[in-house]
Amino acid sequence: MIALCTDFGLGGPYTGQVKAVLARLAPQVPVVDLFADLPAFSPQLAAYLLAAYALRFEPGDVIVAVVDPGVGSARRALVVEADGRWLTGPENGLFEPILRRARAARAWRVAVPEQGIAPTFHGRDVFAPAAARLALGQTPQEPPIEPMRFPDWPDDLPAIVYVDHYGNAMTGLRTASLTADSVLQVAGQRITRKRIFADVPPGQALWYENANGLAEIAVNGGSAAAAFGLAPGSPVVVHFGGTEKTL
Amino acid sequence: MIALCTDFGLGGPYTGQVKAVLARLAPQVPVVDLFADLPAFSPQLAAYLLAAYALRFEPGDVIVAVVDPGVGSARRALVVEADGRWLTGPENGLFEPILRRARAARAWRVAVPEQGIAPTFHGRDVFAPAAARLALGQTPQEPPIEPMRFPDWPDDLPAIVYVDHYGNAMTGLRTASLTADSVLQVAGQRITRKRIFADVPPGQALWYENANGLAEIAVNGGSAAAAFGLAPGSPVVVHFGGTEKTL
Amino acid sequence: MIALCTDFGLGGPYTGQVKAVLARLAPQVPVVDLFADLPAFSPQLAAYLLAAYALRFEPGDVIVAVVDPGVGSARRALVVEADGRWLTGPENGLFEPILRRARAARAWRVAVPEQGIAPTFHGRDVFAPAAARLALGQTPQEPPIEPMRFPDWPDDLPAIVYVDHYGNAMTGLRTASLTADSVLQVAGQRITRKRIFADVPPGQALWYENANGLAEIAVNGGSAAAAFGLAPGSPVVVHFGGTEKTL
Repeated sequence: MIALCTDFGLGGPYTGQVKAVLARLAPQVPVVDLFADLPAFSPQLAAYLLAAYALRFEPGDVIVAVVDPGVGSARRALVVEADGRWLTGPENGLFEPILRRARAARAWRVAVPEQGIAPTFHGRDVFAPAAARLALGQTPQEPPIEPMRFPDWPDDLPAIVYVDHYGNAMTGLRTASLTADSVLQVAGQRITRKRIFADVPPGQALWYENANGLAEIAVNGGSAAAAFGLAPGSPVVVHFGGTEKTL
Repeated sequence: MIALCTDFGLGGPYTGQVKAVLARLAPQVPVVDLFADLPAFSPQLAAYLLAAYALRFEPGDVIVAVVDPGVGSARRALVVEADGRWLTGPENGLFEPILRRARAARAWRVAVPEQGIAPTFHGRDVFAPAAARLALGQTPQEPPIEPMRFPDWPDDLPAIVYVDHYGNAMTGLRTASLTADSVLQVAGQRITRKRIFADVPPGQALWYENANGLAEIAVNGGSAAAAFGLAPGSPVVVHFGGTEKTL
Repeated sequence: MIALCTDFGLGGPYTGQVKAVLARLAPQVPVVDLFADLPAFSPQLAAYLLAAYALRFEPGDVIVAVVDPGVGSARRALVVEADGRWLTGPENGLFEPILRRARAARAWRVAVPEQGIAPTFHGRDVFAPAAARLALGQTPQEPPIEPMRFPDWPDDLPAIVYVDHYGNAMTGLRTASLTADSVLQVAGQRITRKRIFADVPPGQALWYENANGLAEIAVNGGSAAAAFGLAPGSPVVVHFGGTEKTL
């Protein structure tokens, strides 16, 4: 299976052209759109989201991950193997949390030709062909390399990394890194943990473990993004047992 | 064939994860996105839309229908067979018009495990596996149950149930329940029936039988939603032969 | 492969119903969404976009192209073969640039039944079945016809034809029709050509050859559409060597 995690959108020509390449090169492999609306221009926010969602895929699956404001510049292209799952995308931090959390990870460079490809669409011309090869079992034969690392990034990101169309706001915090009585503060409001939306009255806020293990802020029957003015990048403060904590 | 009718959106992670489950469990079955933008928080509006669109599917097809503000609460999960078509989703009224209109219908409960599934994403963890089993011919062997019914709901819903991206506004009224001279009134304006957009001058409103048998309000070359301030839930008054009628 | 190029959107019922027809009639043929957000109501803008994007498809591929404000009226339906690629859609100018640029092109009428189809959804009931037949190799056996032509349309369109979700604005100008020093003027601002976004500082505008050969206006790390108030149909003035030129 190949999963697409990009900021390309679905309506326009980008995802469709990526899928056309995959359908030519790996016609038997199912392709799913996991994210087409990753936060554009921000590989860091996307990276923490990607790490949580990649866990639901299985060894042998391939994730094409592209949030790539530097496309066509000196930034390089990577293939990463993390606990048997394959990923390909730009070398800009997108894979940092995955590399850090994996029990075993290796990385390789993907060659970016100087000619014959579109300098602004490596998703179609570099990463889709790389993904097709990986999905067909054509894994790298050359020695792995040491990818660029981002040691200053935290293990969990105390920020909103994604707002869905209901207005639920996902944080870059794994619930496993928090406690049951952790309080999340956004826009000056303190929010406590519940299990499901219906555990609070309509219109009231909660945070809960979302279906991929991230702490997510919601309003029952409403939009947390609208209620608290949240967008990707908005800061989140964590309080454990009454005290503000740094993760 | 499996059709997805949800309020999950397409860009974010929900539909993609449902499709990943289906691709694992029923890899040979085509999956189509019928609706990803059903009116969130309103199973009733979605129910009348679903009943009209389900008719275009064939015996043996499976529809995953999820508008589920009560996910994870006490509401239960259903499989419905209606005239040979299979549906699965929450027991919250979504299937009421289908059950009422079918020549033959049966229902079963779907077990919702207490552990090991995400309490806020039954679409992925309960309904997608149920749909895969149905699509593979693994239909329920236990005796059917009597699902919760909604006897107060009308046979046709005099309200806007969906606004498309052109601004056309679908009603919950089947054209077969109206007459050729029925007049639909929204926002104080009376609108008469035509066959196609081009039957009225640009900028003028009409109602017509849409491609799935529902009465739909449009403006030729424009947006009825903008012209009349329509959104899902907006009321529609029906006049037959000059008199307001209750359906 | 079948590619869909429409203004139907993806979230609602239109694209899904087209795909359901294709999955029934041509289940082995991959289907990709190339555009679901072509400029509604404007076949001319869509036509120049379509001509650029059709080039990436291969002989034997089929493109379903529907921007069809006159659906159900007297306008007729076409199949076009252009350099081995097949297209089907309304006879309203959508194929004019393709017909003009092809080395070899032929056209046929598609019969539109008077009964038994939805008069407002030929995408599902006329063009999808036509595309399925073409994809299965059932090409027209009758003599070709002379399609309606649009001789007043320019070879390249000096206008914005598409704005993507980043705010990049594609023009109807092929880069091959321009020179390296061509300057594009929109909203009174003159913009020079670069290779990639990162060739200008953040927040600054550029135009570049996009991945499908069209001149595209962007702002590095921002939205050209917002910066210059661009939308489909906005005029673009071309200056070659310091002089305004008519294409």
